[in-house]
Amino acid sequence: MLLDQIEKENDIKKIPKEQLPQLAEEIRQFLIESISRTGGHLASNLGVVELTIALHYVYDLPKDKLIWDVGHQSYTHKILTGRKNQFDTLRQAGGLSGFPKRNESPCDSFNTGHSSTSLSAGVGFVKAREILKENYQVAAVIGDGSLTGGMAYEAMNNASSLKSNFTMILNDNKMSIAENIGGISTLLNNVRTADPYINLKTGIEHQLNKSSFGEKIANHLRNTKNSIRQMLVSGKLFENMGITYIGPIDGHNIDQLIRVLEQTRKVDHSVIVHVLTEKGRGYLPAERYPRRFHGTAPFDVDSGEPKVRKEKPTYTDVFSVSMKRLGAKYPRLTAVTAAMPDGTGLCRFAAEYPERFCDVGIAEEHAVTSAAAMAAAGLKPVVAIYSSFLQRAYDQIVHDVCMQKLPVVFAIDRAGIVGQDGETHQGVFDLSYLSAIPEMTVMAPKNKREFHQMLRFAVEFPGPIAMRYPRGTAYDGLEDRQAPVEKGKSEVLFEGKDIAILAVGSMIPAAVQAREQLESQGVSCTLVNVRFVKPMDEKLFLDLAKSHQLLVTMEDNVITGGFGQRFCDLLRENQVSVPVEVVAIPDQFVEHGDPETVKRSLGMDAQTVAMRVMLAFRALR
Amino acid sequence: MLLDQIEKENDIKKIPKEQLPQLAEEIRQFLIESISRTGGHLASNLGVVELTIALHYVYDLPKDKLIWDVGHQSYTHKILTGRKNQFDTLRQAGGLSGFPKRNESPCDSFNTGHSSTSLSAGVGFVKAREILKENYQVAAVIGDGSLTGGMAYEAMNNASSLKSNFTMILNDNKMSIAENIGGISTLLNNVRTADPYINLKTGIEHQLNKSSFGEKIANHLRNTKNSIRQMLVSGKLFENMGITYIGPIDGHNIDQLIRVLEQTRKVDHSVIVHVLTEKGRGYLPAERYPRRFHGTAPFDVDSGEPKVRKEKPTYTDVFSVSMKRLGAKYPRLTAVTAAMPDGTGLCRFAAEYPERFCDVGIAEEHAVTSAAAMAAAGLKPVVAIYSSFLQRAYDQIVHDVCMQKLPVVFAIDRAGIVGQDGETHQGVFDLSYLSAIPEMTVMAPKNKREFHQMLRFAVEFPGPIAMRYPRGTAYDGLEDRQAPVEKGKSEVLFEGKDIAILAVGSMIPAAVQAREQLESQGVSCTLVNVRFVKPMDEKLFLDLAKSHQLLVTMEDNVITGGFGQRFCDLLRENQVSVPVEVVAIPDQFVEHGDPETVKRSLGMDAQTVAMRVMLAFRALR
Repeated sequence: MLLDQIEKENDIKKIPKEQLPQLAEEIRQFLIESISRTGGHLASNLGVVELTIALHYVYDLPKDKLIWDVGHQSYTHKILTGRKNQFDTLRQAGGLSGFPKRNESPCDSFNTGHSSTSLSAGVGFVKAREILKENYQVAAVIGDGSLTGGMAYEAMNNASSLKSNFTMILNDNKMSIAENIGGISTLLNNVRTADPYINLKTGIEHQLNKSSFGEKIANHLRNTKNSIRQMLVSGKLFENMGITYIGPIDGHNIDQLIRVLEQTRKVDHSVIVHVLTEKGRGYLPAERYPRRFHGTAPFDVDSGEPKVRKEKPTYTDVFSVSMKRLGAKYPRLTAVTAAMPDGTGLCRFAAEYPERFCDVGIAEEHAVTSAAAMAAAGLKPVVAIYSSFLQRAYDQIVHDVCMQKLPVVFAIDRAGIVGQDGETHQGVFDLSYLSAIPEMTVMAPKNKREFHQMLRFAVEFPGPIAMRYPRGTAYDGLEDRQAPVEKGKSEVLFEGKDIAILAVGSMIPAAVQAREQLESQGVSCTLVNVRFVKPMDEKLFLDLAKSHQLLVTMEDNVITGGFGQRFCDLLRENQVSVPVEVVAIPDQFVEHGDPETVKRSLGMDAQTVAMRVMLAFRALR
Repeated sequence: MLLDQIEKENDIKKIPKEQLPQLAEEIRQFLIESISRTGGHLASNLGVVELTIALHYVYDLPKDKLIWDVGHQSYTHKILTGRKNQFDTLRQAGGLSGFPKRNESPCDSFNTGHSSTSLSAGVGFVKAREILKENYQVAAVIGDGSLTGGMAYEAMNNASSLKSNFTMILNDNKMSIAENIGGISTLLNNVRTADPYINLKTGIEHQLNKSSFGEKIANHLRNTKNSIRQMLVSGKLFENMGITYIGPIDGHNIDQLIRVLEQTRKVDHSVIVHVLTEKGRGYLPAERYPRRFHGTAPFDVDSGEPKVRKEKPTYTDVFSVSMKRLGAKYPRLTAVTAAMPDGTGLCRFAAEYPERFCDVGIAEEHAVTSAAAMAAAGLKPVVAIYSSFLQRAYDQIVHDVCMQKLPVVFAIDRAGIVGQDGETHQGVFDLSYLSAIPEMTVMAPKNKREFHQMLRFAVEFPGPIAMRYPRGTAYDGLEDRQAPVEKGKSEVLFEGKDIAILAVGSMIPAAVQAREQLESQGVSCTLVNVRFVKPMDEKLFLDLAKSHQLLVTMEDNVITGGFGQRFCDLLRENQVSVPVEVVAIPDQFVEHGDPETVKRSLGMDAQTVAMRVMLAFRALR
């Protein structure tokens, strides 16, 4: 096995170039087998095996800086930098992260996780190199989907003024997570379908000639004109911005990739290399269904089928069904997603009401502001964006939606602890950043049935409103308890005398368990389903504070600015003095791992909460 | 006076076309005189007088939707829609806003204030019109500077897929607030300097011909080839994205503007009209110094000099001097601004250390992520962005700076109540959104002298750190009291026995006054300069809570998630029960007006605070 010879970065350079395709094959098999056991991102990683090999062959890590956009395609990079043996722990608590992490390896020069940041990071490194007069290479890989994010354009706009090499690699697999959207996609399609010819434009040729091997490769490229898929055609967008464009290149031809990268690193300004890759390459089920194999649970390699069949619907499934149903009832209902028709569950709505479905691409800022205008024009937009990605549109929520009091519904999936994707994807700030905005209403449903009612409530609501719900199985307990949803009203699920627990949305199942445990120890517990994090049910909360000895709030959001702190402030304002236990995420970033394990480690599981509450209750006596 | 005939929208259509230049002249004189008395945005408004007249002549308001990017150039629009007589109240409490406001007029179809949102809003209106099968026109005006913001590109990417007319007007005055940055600027320059010829490309000609007047105008345009500055050249960026490009057009030729706009509104897809305008046009001092007359205080019309000379330096001046000084001492110090070299005061640093100065254009997201990479590469970046604009980069602060614990310094000007610019520009969320982020340190200086020390502390700090300070004169009181700045340590300014006031940064002057008032009534007051909003000086705060009967927190930030709530939570966690008065901005958006008036209306002035505290204190007895 060639792979066995690679124990650390740069070991790849000992392997003869002609054996690299064999190495690619070994890595591909390793990825398929390993991910089939642990789950993880498969299709995107299979697409960049050759590209990663070529990058590692040409660049000198960790001295040179290699930046992966989003970063879920960095598995081969991790294998080539000494982390192969940790793949059994992938995305598990304490194990290998699914994204680049500076604290994992010095070869991970910049952490990523959200889209469209790699070019900005690259520009920052190049600027620093220029200022500090240091000597290393900077290369940033960005997917064609990530190019729809405005940040990438801000970065290109600045890359054009750099005075030394910055190599941008456009990893074009003709899709982001879903299919690509808009003008950029059209532009890339035009380039892709151009006749395969080699157009060594004056500028590029000049650059190539400046280097020692320039003439040789220029000749070579001319000579291989008809024999390879490699093309050097005009990339108009980039050239117009003053960035040299080279491509498209066959992203599965290691030899070609190495030749081009060895030349482009010598260009004395910003250059973009357009590389065509195939998502899922080398594993038929992933080639056929790249969206299903974008992020996958453990699967059977032979059949491609998941090892464990999902038995109960997730909140995403519930949203999906609910939106389709509401679409029939409300003709002005319009759904907006930022490149996540599958992930958010909007695919059903899209199929049924294509004219009322807007996928704007990876462009959360535009999604929110355009939805605000839709609301101003009389539509009822539902913007479905994951909690952590919605952080991108914070200013637009403040400025375009809430200041104008426009009735936009935010359906916020992946709120709270998301698990394996880890810290960049935890949806643990939303209650804080949304509650601080005037005019915003913030809700969280306790279970599947309430989800439907709450979404309908949101659609009928006349102002800005957000509903947040977690990743994973929708809770189906307490379905017999269902007071109608009313603005600012919480729901008392169980009445007790000693302690009152107020739990937000996804914390309800743990709260139910904690309550049972406390009751079994002779403590009488009220349990309240908060429903409205903002505005709060002030009257109920103050009554509870007066009639109980201890209050407990539970939320899977950071403690700062969250429900618990606002609840305590309500008591203070009303001069009610009663002890409160605030269960929330402490002031720290939360790493990857199985959600239950993570919650336990944060002291947010039912058992720890019950123990903590019991201790506080006993201390009162 | 023609202007007297205009009492409401569409009145302009009664004026014969040949008299419109005279109307423009009258409006220009009105603007100069009116703004010379009230202050406001001058240069940008003088630049779009003719464009606004043409838009109002062609479009039918409020049925048609006209969207202004940023919106500080909407004064002529306000004059033409019945608001001329309110200009004496411009930007004053209860008076006319300096930005479009839906609650001011139905002709203001969408509120703006921050940059680069107008195209997104326009796309939203067009989508809504398509879905609801309604019949109105949508036109969005965007400046060339705003085009450097990524959102604008996200919107164009989506505009290209629209199936009906969307008219984008590129108001190209060759500068945003400062000069333009990057590749887009290069691109526009190339277009501007092209030979003035008329290139009616097939697509456009076809479009023009489809309309009834098409052939006529096409002929006209051909015939006027040499006599007018109007050009139709290839706008490659836009055309590549599938958007029809027309221009550049002379933005001060009303006749031409009307002819072109009447045609472009008939195009059946997205079209961009490139209009060249001159900032400050018609008022020599503003033509010469458009940056000084971007936003101006009242001035003398004859000389162009401000009516009131600034006597004391602002915090921006202090930052400016401090950065220049620190630049000499710290060779790795690098300054980053998003198109605000003057507004932030970085111009001095830029002049002295041009190689360490990065103006990225209006691109806050890129600014923050590229600064994170600079820090990863060994530089010490200081990112100077106004508080409300930094909201744009919230996700990047979380994801790229704080998760990686990178030592980026955020110099946050215009924090707190900003005054005349009003709700879009109030910097009242920063303490909340920054304090909720793990690893972030948040500071506010009490006065000028402390500002220098604190900035130096920030520059030497090994992690993410933010320093926020208000618009306006730097406080120069208490300069004799200056304990060294230490991480997480507050400063006790005065020791008392009954009440302890903890004030954040810009609230110190009011706190000093309130304390004097309370002392004069026989109440002994401790006054603490908080300095570190995060992390808090826990030991000191708990000691104060134990030794005083009443605690008071003061901050000019929203109450939710702000210092006061976090302070109360500290007491709760430590089972310290003592009454706290939290002085902060209530849960509402804060409109424009003189800062002192606004603070009084919010109950945040010294007198109201003293009264409120006294009442709470008496109630304890």
